Amino acid sequence: MVVPPSPEGKAECWYTEYHTADLRLSLRVERFLLTKRSKYQRIDIFDSHEMGRVLALDSKIQLTERDEFMYHEMLVHPAMLSHPDPREVLLIGGGDGGAAREILKHPVERLVHVELDEEVVKACREFLPSLACSYDDPRHELVIGEGFQFLRRQPDESFDVVIVDSTDPIGPARALFSGEFYDEVRRALRPGGVAAAQGETPFLYPDVTSGLVRVFRERFSSVRVFVSFVPSYQSGMWAFVVGSDSSLDLDRGELERRMAERRIETRFYNPDVHLGLSSLPNFLRELLGS
Amino acid sequence: MVVPPSPEGKAECWYTEYHTADLRLSLRVERFLLTKRSKYQRIDIFDSHEMGRVLALDSKIQLTERDEFMYHEMLVHPAMLSHPDPREVLLIGGGDGGAAREILKHPVERLVHVELDEEVVKACREFLPSLACSYDDPRHELVIGEGFQFLRRQPDESFDVVIVDSTDPIGPARALFSGEFYDEVRRALRPGGVAAAQGETPFLYPDVTSGLVRVFRERFSSVRVFVSFVPSYQSGMWAFVVGSDSSLDLDRGELERRMAERRIETRFYNPDVHLGLSSLPNFLRELLGS
Repeated sequence: MVVPPSPEGKAECWYTEYHTADLRLSLRVERFLLTKRSKYQRIDIFDSHEMGRVLALDSKIQLTERDEFMYHEMLVHPAMLSHPDPREVLLIGGGDGGAAREILKHPVERLVHVELDEEVVKACREFLPSLACSYDDPRHELVIGEGFQFLRRQPDESFDVVIVDSTDPIGPARALFSGEFYDEVRRALRPGGVAAAQGETPFLYPDVTSGLVRVFRERFSSVRVFVSFVPSYQSGMWAFVVGSDSSLDLDRGELERRMAERRIETRFYNPDVHLGLSSLPNFLRELLGS
Repeated sequence: MVVPPSPEGKAECWYTEYHTADLRLSLRVERFLLTKRSKYQRIDIFDSHEMGRVLALDSKIQLTERDEFMYHEMLVHPAMLSHPDPREVLLIGGGDGGAAREILKHPVERLVHVELDEEVVKACREFLPSLACSYDDPRHELVIGEGFQFLRRQPDESFDVVIVDSTDPIGPARALFSGEFYDEVRRALRPGGVAAAQGETPFLYPDVTSGLVRVFRERFSSVRVFVSFVPSYQSGMWAFVVGSDSSLDLDRGELERRMAERRIETRFYNPDVHLGLSSLPNFLRELLGS
């Protein structure tokens, strides 16, 4: 629900997102910068007083400037550092550019970035330059199209890492939570390759998280679930799933070494957090099995 | 802000809490059970559709039935398990009974529980029996009074563990974040004693968390900060601080052993989470120093 600003000086404008039918978060809006309908979804960009600039798609907050680092770093670095030498990376979704920015901190040769909605990229290049900052990097190849279709056309063993930065599993992103999609992800990975995806809130939508974890476990011999903090997202508690047929049991020293070698600088992620946030509380162990 | 239910069948009733002036969380209300003003504060208890029964004091949610275990277990068990043999425990605040319930899972001889507001205890005994479940336990000694005043009258070295379950540092709980208060806490602890407190949200109010951590560091040789998840609290990211003059560096095996010996059962806490959630992300390392 997007309320247009009132012309009176005293009125307040709040952006209210329904996390469930019975729970909602509201951000006070300073000004709307963009409201448009693309072929796929409604795109809103506004400045909020508390969380900085905000991108919302179909009335769901995708990111706020203030906490997007907490999301993008945990989506990208556990996966990228779990691979000893990620040269070719596929990113599906994440048209805002935040995940691409984090991936390109690693010395990759090529990032193929498949985003469905060109209008999201355009909007973020204009209004969110701190995220959409790598589209001019020659390593960054943007492909506008459907992730699932793109993957089907890829030869086997094309990528070292595949990262899925999808919206919620309603509307266009639904297919990105399916087993058929991850069959293709697995096929496109080179031996020892690593796949990662955002896994939604295990607190409010436990079935979505556990469903995705099951899809990963059925396809990869090693799976890690990280549960981290994203204050602007539903419940603030967010899952990230990483899978590989190589072992994901890296110790602190190895993670430190890889991070230092690649000269990765972060505001949230560090090797202790990598290990710490994959220690799950009991109710999530029960939900996800071990 | 508490909106009374509308008499019309079609209206909705939402409880809206301001996390800051510009960010707010709303829960849809099923029915109000209690709204009263005590000598110290306004007390509201209502049933929400999403989070179960809710206690709010002065328009701040203190707990919801659905996620209170995430708060109370992380407030209590890291501290209690850091002590090899906690026999006499002092709890300040927490009139709802949730922290007392967790403390009494340990084989303590005596829990002295100092709560300012008798009306909170009465309301929770009536409406939140899953929290206020240990007031009839003979080990549980309830003292109605001010925590700071109570501590001042205690002899030196009276307790093995002191746990502070305060409201936000505005209004009656302000003093419970001061150095003078923790001077008294320290004095009341036996050698090797452990103190713990909730440390607010380091995301939205970093100065409050860092101020409390400083107070602890100036008084205890060993201090640990845990940052955990409480979805119904501001930002969902919540700090807990533990201090002692004994080492708090327990390994997983020792925590496991103590937990098994004391037959502690939990829904959130486990020794991996104990170690994992004391690994802080970079922006909190910077905020809190190391």
